[in-house]
Order: sequence, then C-alpha cells, then structure tokens
Amino acid sequence: MKNTLGNNVSVTLFGESHGTAIGAVVDGLPAGISVNEDFISHQLDLRRPVGKISTPRKEADKFNIVSGVFNGKTTGTPICIVIPNENTQSKDYSKTYGKARPGHADYTAFCKYNGCEDYRGGGHFSGRITAGLVAAGAIAIDLLSKKGVKIGTHISKCAGVEDDSFTEYESNINTLSDKMFAVLNDEKGGQMIKNIENAGAQGDSVGGILETAVIGLPVGVGEPWFDSVESVISHALFSIPAVKGVEFGAGFSCADMLGSKMNDCFTVTDGKITTKTNNNGGINGGITNGMPVIFRCAIKPTPSISKEQETVDFIKKENTTLSVNGRHDPCIVHRARVVVDSITALALCDLLSQKFGTDWLGDN
Amino acid sequence: MKNTLGNNVSVTLFGESHGTAIGAVVDGLPAGISVNEDFISHQLDLRRPVGKISTPRKEADKFNIVSGVFNGKTTGTPICIVIPNENTQSKDYSKTYGKARPGHADYTAFCKYNGCEDYRGGGHFSGRITAGLVAAGAIAIDLLSKKGVKIGTHISKCAGVEDDSFTEYESNINTLSDKMFAVLNDEKGGQMIKNIENAGAQGDSVGGILETAVIGLPVGVGEPWFDSVESVISHALFSIPAVKGVEFGAGFSCADMLGSKMNDCFTVTDGKITTKTNNNGGINGGITNGMPVIFRCAIKPTPSISKEQETVDFIKKENTTLSVNGRHDPCIVHRARVVVDSITALALCDLLSQKFGTDWLGDN
Amino acid sequence: MKNTLGNNVSVTLFGESHGTAIGAVVDGLPAGISVNEDFISHQLDLRRPVGKISTPRKEADKFNIVSGVFNGKTTGTPICIVIPNENTQSKDYSKTYGKARPGHADYTAFCKYNGCEDYRGGGHFSGRITAGLVAAGAIAIDLLSKKGVKIGTHISKCAGVEDDSFTEYESNINTLSDKMFAVLNDEKGGQMIKNIENAGAQGDSVGGILETAVIGLPVGVGEPWFDSVESVISHALFSIPAVKGVEFGAGFSCADMLGSKMNDCFTVTDGKITTKTNNNGGINGGITNGMPVIFRCAIKPTPSISKEQETVDFIKKENTTLSVNGRHDPCIVHRARVVVDSITALALCDLLSQKFGTDWLGDN
Amino acid sequence: MKNTLGNNVSVTLFGESHGTAIGAVVDGLPAGISVNEDFISHQLDLRRPVGKISTPRKEADKFNIVSGVFNGKTTGTPICIVIPNENTQSKDYSKTYGKARPGHADYTAFCKYNGCEDYRGGGHFSGRITAGLVAAGAIAIDLLSKKGVKIGTHISKCAGVEDDSFTEYESNINTLSDKMFAVLNDEKGGQMIKNIENAGAQGDSVGGILETAVIGLPVGVGEPWFDSVESVISHALFSIPAVKGVEFGAGFSCADMLGSKMNDCFTVTDGKITTKTNNNGGINGGITNGMPVIFRCAIKPTPSISKEQETVDFIKKENTTLSVNGRHDPCIVHRARVVVDSITALALCDLLSQKFGTDWLGDN
Repeated sequence: MKNTLGNNVSVTLFGESHGTAIGAVVDGLPAGISVNEDFISHQLDLRRPVGKISTPRKEADKFNIVSGVFNGKTTGTPICIVIPNENTQSKDYSKTYGKARPGHADYTAFCKYNGCEDYRGGGHFSGRITAGLVAAGAIAIDLLSKKGVKIGTHISKCAGVEDDSFTEYESNINTLSDKMFAVLNDEKGGQMIKNIENAGAQGDSVGGILETAVIGLPVGVGEPWFDSVESVISHALFSIPAVKGVEFGAGFSCADMLGSKMNDCFTVTDGKITTKTNNNGGINGGITNGMPVIFRCAIKPTPSISKEQETVDFIKKENTTLSVNGRHDPCIVHRARVVVDSITALALCDLLSQKFGTDWLGDN
Repeated sequence: MKNTLGNNVSVTLFGESHGTAIGAVVDGLPAGISVNEDFISHQLDLRRPVGKISTPRKEADKFNIVSGVFNGKTTGTPICIVIPNENTQSKDYSKTYGKARPGHADYTAFCKYNGCEDYRGGGHFSGRITAGLVAAGAIAIDLLSKKGVKIGTHISKCAGVEDDSFTEYESNINTLSDKMFAVLNDEKGGQMIKNIENAGAQGDSVGGILETAVIGLPVGVGEPWFDSVESVISHALFSIPAVKGVEFGAGFSCADMLGSKMNDCFTVTDGKITTKTNNNGGINGGITNGMPVIFRCAIKPTPSISKEQETVDFIKKENTTLSVNGRHDPCIVHRARVVVDSITALALCDLLSQKFGTDWLGDN
Repeated sequence: MKNTLGNNVSVTLFGESHGTAIGAVVDGLPAGISVNEDFISHQLDLRRPVGKISTPRKEADKFNIVSGVFNGKTTGTPICIVIPNENTQSKDYSKTYGKARPGHADYTAFCKYNGCEDYRGGGHFSGRITAGLVAAGAIAIDLLSKKGVKIGTHISKCAGVEDDSFTEYESNINTLSDKMFAVLNDEKGGQMIKNIENAGAQGDSVGGILETAVIGLPVGVGEPWFDSVESVISHALFSIPAVKGVEFGAGFSCADMLGSKMNDCFTVTDGKITTKTNNNGGINGGITNGMPVIFRCAIKPTPSISKEQETVDFIKKENTTLSVNGRHDPCIVHRARVVVDSITALALCDLLSQKFGTDWLGDN
Repeated sequence: MKNTLGNNVSVTLFGESHGTAIGAVVDGLPAGISVNEDFISHQLDLRRPVGKISTPRKEADKFNIVSGVFNGKTTGTPICIVIPNENTQSKDYSKTYGKARPGHADYTAFCKYNGCEDYRGGGHFSGRITAGLVAAGAIAIDLLSKKGVKIGTHISKCAGVEDDSFTEYESNINTLSDKMFAVLNDEKGGQMIKNIENAGAQGDSVGGILETAVIGLPVGVGEPWFDSVESVISHALFSIPAVKGVEFGAGFSCADMLGSKMNDCFTVTDGKITTKTNNNGGINGGITNGMPVIFRCAIKPTPSISKEQETVDFIKKENTTLSVNGRHDPCIVHRARVVVDSITALALCDLLSQKFGTDWLGDN
C-alpha cells in the first residue's frame, strides 16, 4: 500500500513539509504497552539537524499523540501522532517552481501528480516526513526491547571514512543509542565530520553506509517466500528516498566468495546452535537462524546542494541552471540512522505478529 | 503475504521439490491476453540446468495450465500452472535428515516448521520452486513487452570476471533474451564458465551479480512512500533465497560520491526531459523519471557443495561434518537471471495497475 | 486490516470519543481533485444529532485538513483530516467503569484490550468516530459524482413505519442529499419522528433499515470471488457497529421466491441491455450488470438507554443494574445514513480503481 | 484481493467448470496439523448433488493434495489441492453462447472479461468452484475443532418451510455434521424436500436461509473497525454468488425492536459472564463476547431453470427466450451449507491469527 506499511501492525504516514502538520498512525500494537514520551522525544532529537554537525538544536519537534494512548499506555486502537509544522516560512516557492533539483523528486512528483503536488520544501518527499516514522518507531523499538529484541545502527562509512565494525553487539547497540553521530569509533567519526564540513563548505554533499544489527530475534521468524526477512526489511528501507542499496550479511561481497567461504558452518555448544561466521546475516532461506540479523544500506549524498547544477525547468520545458540556496544538510547519513532503526522496528513488529500474534508483542 | 505477492495482480507459489507438483497461480491479469506456451517453455528452458554449463538438457519442464486460459487467451480469472515433479527419486532422505547444510534453509525450516517440513531435496526452499515463478512471469513479460516495457538481465559479474556494461538497452535486452548464459560479452562469459567449472571440479561453488534494465516504463510510476519502485522490486527480489543484496543505479558506490557527482542533471531535447547520467537508476523519490530503471542483485554461491564442511545434526544436537553428494550446480547465477526477470515483471504489473488499472495491462 | 479499509484507495480511522481528536487518513485518491470544504461541512452536518430530531444544532464539527490538499485540490498524497474533540467534559468516567452497557462494546473492549481501553464515552467505539469517515467520504462522494456515480440512502423503515420506495433514482438521490431526516415521503418521516420521540420519552430507543441506491456504475465492476461487489460493500457496512444485517436486491425475501420470479429477465432496447426487475440488486456473480446497485442495512436500536437494565460489573464480576444517564439518541438511523453513503463511496473508489486505476478516478 | 481471501491464513481459488481442474491453495496454516483426507472427502460429499434430493451419488470428487502435506501433516507451506474436472462433456457450448441466463453471471462475465471468459458451464462462476473451498475449509474446520471452536449450519428455511431453531448448540452441531440435508427437524426437512421436488417438476427452483452457529470462540476476537467479526464473515459469505443477504443475531428484525428488548443483558454466574439473550449474535462492537456467534445468509433460488424465460442474446443484441436444458438443481441451499461452514472456518483462522498468531492455530 502507498503510505501504509504492514498488516497486523501497520504505520500510515501523512503530511507535507510546509503543510499544517505531518505525522503517522500506528495500528495493531496491543493494549497496555507503556508509551514513554521522553523516549519518543529522544528519538526525534536523534534525527534532528545538528549545527556544524555537532551541536543539537535547542528547540524540539513537538508531537501530539492525539489518540490510542490513555493513562500512559496504549489502548490497542490506532495511535495517531501529529507533529505541527512550525518553521514553514512564507517564502514564495511558486517563483522557483518548475526548476527540478537534480536527484530530487521535484520532477517525478510533478509527473505523477499532474502538477498538483505540494512542491513547497519537498512536500510529501521531504525528509521531514520521517519525523512521523521516528515517533511511531520509538514505540516499536521500546516494545521490542522489552521482548529482548534490540536494534542498533552505526555509520559504517561516510565521506570516505570507515568506522570500526561491531564487536560486542549488545554493548555496541547500547552505546550507539544515545549518540547524535552514531559511530563505534569516535575518532573516525571526527574525521567523517571534518570531511562533511569540507564538502558543505564547497557547496557539495556526501553519502555513506549505515550498518544495522538486530539481536534477540527468535529462531524461525520470517514468512517465505514473499515475506522473507530480507523482503520485509528491504521493502521498508527502500521507502526512504535516499536509500539506493540494501544488503544482508556479506551482501554484494558474496559475489567474489567461494561457497566454502560464504557458507556459515553450524556448531553446537551447550545445546545451542550457532554459526561460526555470519555471512548470511542471520537469515537462511528468508528465516532467522538465531544469529544477529545484519544489514547495510547505502545513503546517497543529499541532492540539495548550493553548487550550481545543470537542470531543466519542467514547466517551460527548457534547460537552465540551479543553485539550491538556503541552509541544507551536507550529509543526512547520521540523521537517517534513527529512521532506519524506526522503520526496521515497525516492520519487525508486523512480521513477528504473523507468527506469534499481536497479543504476544504486549506480553512481558 | 507469505506465498502471495501483489494485490491487483498477484502470484501465489506452491510446491515442494519432491512432492507431487509445484506451480503458481497468477490472478488479476486482464482477459484477452494471448498466452504463448512456446514462450513459457522458452523461459523455463532458460532456468534449467546446463550440463557443463553450456549444453541445454533435452527434456523440458512440462507445465499444465489448468485454469484461466481459454482458446489461447487469458480469461481474466486465475491462471493456475502446475508443473509435475518427475525426477523425484526414492532416495531415503530421512537418513541424512538432521544434518544442516551450511548456508541452506534446512535448520531454519526445521525450527520454523517444528520438524514437519518436507525436507526432501530442499522442500519448499528448493530452487525448483522458481520454475512456477518463471512460467507465471513469462506471461507478465510478454504482456509488458506489448506495452513497450522491456526487461533484460545480464551476468555483470561471476566467478571473479566482469561482463561489459549495457550499451544500447533495447538491442542488448533483445540479445540477452535467448542466451542460456546471459552475458553481453561472450568472451567474458567463456572465462566465467571456465572458472565455474574449476570451482565445481574442486567441490566448491561461486556467486555473482545480476544487472537488470527495465526500459519503456512511463514517467510517474511508483507509489511512495511504501510502494516506491525500489520497495516493490527489492521485496520481490529478496524473496529469492540466494539474493543477499539489491541496489539501484549507482547503489552502494554512492557512498563514495559527492552530491554534485551523484545527482543526475536534467536536460531537455526536443521537448523530452532526460538525465545526463543515471546514478539514481531511473527513480527519484521512489517514482520513475523516464530513464531506464537499473538495478543489480547479488547472488550468493550455491550452498550445496561436495567439499566437506563442519556443521551440526540438529536432531541429535551434536557437531558433525557434511559433504553434499550427488549432482549440484557449482553456480546458479545464470539460471537465476530468468527468475529475476520474471519476478520483476510480475511486481511491475501489480505496481502499474495501481495507477492505470488492470484493464490497462490488456489494452493494446 | 484493522483500521484501514482498502488497498488502492484506503481510509485509516483514528481517535477516541474523549481523546484529543478523531479523524481519518485517506490515501490513493489521485491528484487534482477539487476538495469542497463546504460539502464536507454539509455532510458532517447530516450526521450530527438533531434536537428533538428536527432542529439542526448551530455549532459545526470543525475539521482541519492537515495534509494532502494544496490550493484547494488533492495533491495525490495522504489526506489527513483531524477533528478536535471539544465537548469532552471532565466527568469522572472511572466511577462507572466496569458497568457494561448491554448491547455496547464496553465489555468486549475490556476483554480485547485487557482493561487498557479508553472507556470514556465509548472510546474508539463511539459513533463519534464516524465523523472522520464522513469527512473522508465526502471527498469520495464528490469525486464519484463527477464520474456519474451517485449514491443515495433513505430510511426505508424506522420505529415501525415504512417509507415509500425509490421511484426515480436520480431525482430521489438528489432530493435526499440535503435532508436531515432522509425519507422519500415526509409524512411517513413525520410519523417516524413522533414514534422516536415517544420511545425516547420512555427512556427507550428504536432501530430501522436504511436502503441505498448506487447509480451510474459501469457494467463489469467487481472482482470475484473475494472482491465481489457484495463482499466489498458488506465488509465496509458491517464495520459500523450498529449494523446487524446487509442484503442486496430482494435480499432475504429471495428465500420465499421461485427462481422464475427471482431471476431478472434481460431485455434490450435501442441496443441497451437492462433487466425488467432488479431482484439481484444490480449484481450478478459479484459483478455489476448496469442496473442500480440496491442494498439495505439493518441499524439496531441505540444501546444506551435510560431505562434500567440488568447487567454486570465486569471488574467486580457481580450482577448489577444500569440506567444510562445524560443525553442519548433514541435513534441513530437518520444519522447513520450519511455514514453509509460515505463508507460506500470509499469502498467503491477502491474497487473501481482495481479495474480502472486510481488515475481514472481523477479523470474528468 | 480477487481470488485470495485472508492475510495471515489465506485461501486462493482457481479453476473453471469445464477446464482441466479446479482447486485451492491454502497458505499460512502452521506446520504439524494432521490432515484427514477422509474428512475432506466427507465434506466434499456434503456439497455434492443428491439425486431426488436424498440419495448421495456413489462417485466421489477426487482431490489431489499436490503440496504442503508430508507424512499426513501440514508442512507449514502452501497446501495446493487440485480437483480434476472429469465429467466435462464435449457439448458445444459455443452454440448457445450469447444467450444470458437470467440471474446468472453470463452477461456480467461477458462485460467484465470482454468476451474472453470461459463460458462453458458457468466457467469460473460455476458452483463447482466451491469444491476447492470445501476441501480447503475441511482442514480449517478440523483445526478449529481441535481448538474448541465448532461451526454448524442448518437450513433454517427452505421452499416455504421453517426448520426448528438451535436448542443445544454443541449437540446440534454434531448432529448436523453428517447430514446430507442439514435440518434440525427431519420432518420439516421432509416437507422442504417435497416442495423442492415439486418446484423442480415444474421446471422451477427455490431458495432458502442458512443459519450458522460458531461456538467456542474466545472472548475478545475481532479487529474493529474494519476487521470486525461481522465484516470478516460477511465478506467471505458474500463471495458465494448465490448469497444475497447476511445478518447477525436478531439481524433485520432489530429494526422492529426497542432498545430495551434488543440489548442483551449481561449476567454473571460462577464468575462467568454471559448474556441472557443473544440478539447481537455473540458480537458487540465487532468483537466476540463469548456467546455463540450466530448468523444467517439468504440463498437465492437456483437461476438455471427449464421454465422458459425472456432474455437477450448479448452478442446479437436482441431479445430472445431461453429454457435451460439438462439436469439442474432445483435448490442448492442444502449443498451451500458446507460451503458456508468452510469459508467461515477459513475466515476465522485468519482473524484469530491476527491476535494469537498462526503458531497458536497449531497448538494443541
């Protein structure tokens, strides 16, 4: 479905960048789950822009939970979270309408919506829409955590710099959960930031790779063929417009491996079956095997840059040039991290409830 | 849904490797589409094993269309295609049951299905199940082709050898459509085959990367956020158990690019808007922009190898070793190609019909 | 899905009677449809309570369209309509919590949501939730009307009085569209109102039957077996908690008819095929035949009555009695009428777009 | 979806009356459920035509379970049941093609499928298609029975004669399960049969009402608003082309009742909460309340009758007359009974698994 993801547990997105409000409706979560508004705020903070990459803005995204929560707990009915748009300026976007930002959805939205799209500030394609996902996802992350399922994402590569790898999953995930710039090695993070700033200073932008680990999933989760774990997670991730690639375990590098190397040998210790390597990313045949589920997604460089670019005016149907003015993020990789965690949590809640039921999600 | 993909146009898979039959039900295709059984046979031939990689087997997969086709045309009601399992040998699989093939779904199926799975020859996780997809997909490929939408996939990398890139999409796609080993450069293909044979001779296997181009899609197709073109196609591709990565356009390499390089500049020629590069793979904001839709998927090396591997017996819960006997493919990349084309065609039929309706698919 | 109806065109409901707000998200409507806020207000007025049955209240339900509409037209992205809850009084509902109103969802909600339901004023089961449906449905009704598809519902029976039958569908539908108490014969309507008032005066309530006609649907609409026109419409209607029966054409009376009487004979006049009778309600085999689609739904008497009733306290698990105090509707049949029109319109938009595509809905 | 019902547990129908085979694919049932082929045969027997109403035919519908069952138990993967069409005669249906049987889908199928429908013997709209549903439903009925959920349907009215009401649900359901003509009072059944025979002798047909009871459902089942118990069951029932009405509990008679009569008063005995009456059919607010779920559906008289009727030739677009020759059922009410049980069981499996998970269905 268009703006609804999931069946048993679903999230529906709405809003445009410069409309009245954006938000999300989460349905199917069982009743009685504590909703921690501080944690939602915390998660929203993680996706907010950071000045010069490092300083968090002072003002918060204010969100209103207008339904589905009563006395601090879920009621079992739809949770609608509304986030008003406050900083929408009276700037006259209609003046520049028609000039397609390369790499952006301006032109495709114009084609799809016949010129009726809300073009102001990216409209429904603005990264701002992910704030609704993050607020919704916070509840799912919290819920899964109580079930022993933990999700953590780090910036494995950005602006040409590689972060360290996961070493101890649980402690790594805990460490990452509070970081505004989620790297495992802060020195590498510092280099990334410096490179991002340099790119920004030149009116350009950079991309990167996010790597996610999900631990604590039961063995036997996934609904092949078409709701394989990979299908469900990639479907969710590729809804983020900046994601251009998703891989699990060894991913694309498996193309260069021999089977004897790629295969993860099973081993049993104290009655517990694990694999010695994890090239399959915790998934065999679309079903979890008990190892951490590992995936990476490629985040493209922010398309809005101040450097002059060639483009077209799709109204006038003529060639022109464009330099995107005003503040823009020279990198969104660090902000996308919490979006990845959020959408993964929501997708997993839906997948788990096929097998175990939505009641199970609320069971502690 | 588990074994049903799509809403307006759907495909439902069934069958196990050593059961009575495997097959697929395709629903939602409009009435009046010519069903070319020769083309279905041709497509099934493309996924069949090739002896020493190059010689097609003589016997064909016999398929029976048991419903939904009348007087050579679709009736508009479900098309059920049944492919009997013929070469199922009376081998006693129960003797080796419990020894998990590394990289395979033996262990995860055991966990998910509580030991009731049909374990013979991989059961429902056998590559054989894709024959149903290919037969179903043949009808979709044919239909799309009449609408001007053409799909072609080549082996862009295999066994350490890289194929040439697409040059002229339409003629490349035409050339590929009849090849048993789908490369653009046959010399490179020859090297791949040699390397595959070498790996096989050592009881090992290799993987590779398939690259697909879809041309002729209208501008404005895709249903963001959650039915973005990337979401829909990746969901379908990741249902194939061997796929471990999917990327669009520049994919993972975007992590190393500057925005000014990654952004595809628009240009207008004779009133037609195109982009100068295609790093976004024909998709902006989850919607087609009129450029070829380009994606790659990573196919892991075949997990069944004769080389001895460490593993467990999950019934006895003890460590053991395993050497998978009998004939096995040292590579399935070339056979997976037609599966990728097929599932892409089916997923696109569903996506297109959201916007244009299923009637439109039958309109010529 | 729980609170989402439809695939290509969907509506998602949220809200509780005494929460911050209620509302709906409509997704999948094409871009460029004029959104007439006056018509939405008009439709919301039709479902509002009428004092002594006949006088419309002065104050309106205020609704905010927070997304999906720009410059008075749909943008093609989700339309979120938020209706704040204003008259929620600080009454302490917790005092009476546990006393199950007979015929209401108090007890079942308690069981389903483990005592975490928002019980104030019926919570998510309040008739108030239908305001979101009506606002959303207004856009669908307007859109369908431009495509020549018109929907009208009258109170065919209420409080023991029967209304006249449809005579001229189009003019009947037009006449009904503005009536607060939608009968074809106002004298009969007057008797109904008198009987409703009498029941109310005795602390009791009455039910009735609504009959709906849909004209202008193309021939050949419906997706058997499981998305037959009857399946789709009844699914939608039975989501309204007060509906206890749905029938098409002759409905239950067909049980007493001979085939030769029930069958609608076809006839052709000036090349146009119609049926002489319409016992099948415009539907054969789940597909429209070009005749008006006719259905009726039974609306039960309002469960909240001031008359004392036996019941239980489900917290204390003991027998008790209950007299529901405060203002309550002695009848909701006339208010339910616009809800039936609304949900029918939304369900038909979804059904039509399977065949014709969502673009077609916006095509004028 | 068109020919697929359900999400967590789904059934997909395929086939035409005179094609190669008809059948169904059931997906989502958990692994390890015993599949009793005798019970499937038994259920198929119940829907087969009875000569002069009372004598069961000797030959059985042969069904092949081609996937999803291994060693007598479900594997957890799709169960495909194929029923070959054997008695398809070489009669030249093309000669009469164009003459629309009144009350049948001939004309609407022609319109929907543009003249490409398989018109032989009713094609995809033949009652024969329900054999697939019955075979699939048998597994679901068996499974639910082991969970304590029992379903029974009797002919509450047929050919002007009314059967007795349910008295003791469980024993009534058990008694009905083996009856070819499912009435609670066999004397009344005898009168029905006599009346059916009389109608048949005059080349005419009769309809009736089926009443179903479902006992043993847990309290709190149902997913309002849009997956209310009534929505889910009515959606399933109205997919049967002969069903023209569905009502729950008091159904349409609620229109004539006062609230104080319609409301089912709660009472508690030994800690167990029940209602004194069951006018709401075991459902409040779309959720089960622990009382038997009761519904009725109206089955129209068989449209195929030998009495001459006026109709059109939709190819020639002219008026004509038609007398449907050959054997036809003067009544299908008694045969539809097992179809109602089957589709109800399948729909309930899907609904229950939203809350409890598919694993729960297999848990004994």
